Amino acid sequence: MEERIRISMLLDYYSELLTVKQKNIMDLYFNNDLSLSEISQITDTSRQAIHDVLKRSCTLLEVYEKKLKLLEKSMNREKLKYKVLKELDMLFDENNYNSKISNLLEELKYYINNIV
Amino acid sequence: MEERIRISMLLDYYSELLTVKQKNIMDLYFNNDLSLSEISQITDTSRQAIHDVLKRSCTLLEVYEKKLKLLEKSMNREKLKYKVLKELDMLFDENNYNSKISNLLEELKYYINNIV
Repeated sequence: MEERIRISMLLDYYSELLTVKQKNIMDLYFNNDLSLSEISQITDTSRQAIHDVLKRSCTLLEVYEKKLKLLEKSMNREKLKYKVLKELDMLFDENNYNSKISNLLEELKYYINNIV
Repeated sequence: MEERIRISMLLDYYSELLTVKQKNIMDLYFNNDLSLSEISQITDTSRQAIHDVLKRSCTLLEVYEKKLKLLEKSMNREKLKYKVLKELDMLFDENNYNSKISNLLEELKYYINNIV
């Protein structure tokens, strides 16, 4: 996975564990695609300080992922959900238009899609 | 949920975010059911210090849960998994011994049970 995408995904899981300042700067850089100079102007902070906050925050996100593995677990969950949904589609095909079973399968899909 | 059980469950999710000392004392108290005096003797630490570590660690666990909601999400996931597994059993009953569908359903159960 590309590093930038990975960091952006880690932010989804761990941004609440960062300080408000770290969270804000990470969000501007990784989710809003602003440059160091732009963030420096907006936050009235030196370019070097922004660079340091970004570096420190990225390290923190990786430390949290090493400890809690939330991204790794979520990706495994998504893989399993994908397999389940694919099999449910196969069951639909086998089902020959029995409406009771179709309803059960639809409900199952709904539940699976809500597992996060 | 009883407080002691809740703390024990929160430890499953967040113990890696505690210090080694906090983790060790919390484990002895909540998972191994030792008394403050027993932990005090084992760790060669005053009873008051053990009490303070326990109190501080419980607060930390609740702070992490407030931020990341891992226990809450896991409980929601388990509820959905329970519903899915129950519906899969209903599908088994509807299925009238078609072995292909039975195999698909067995595989589905296996996948669902592996979602954590």
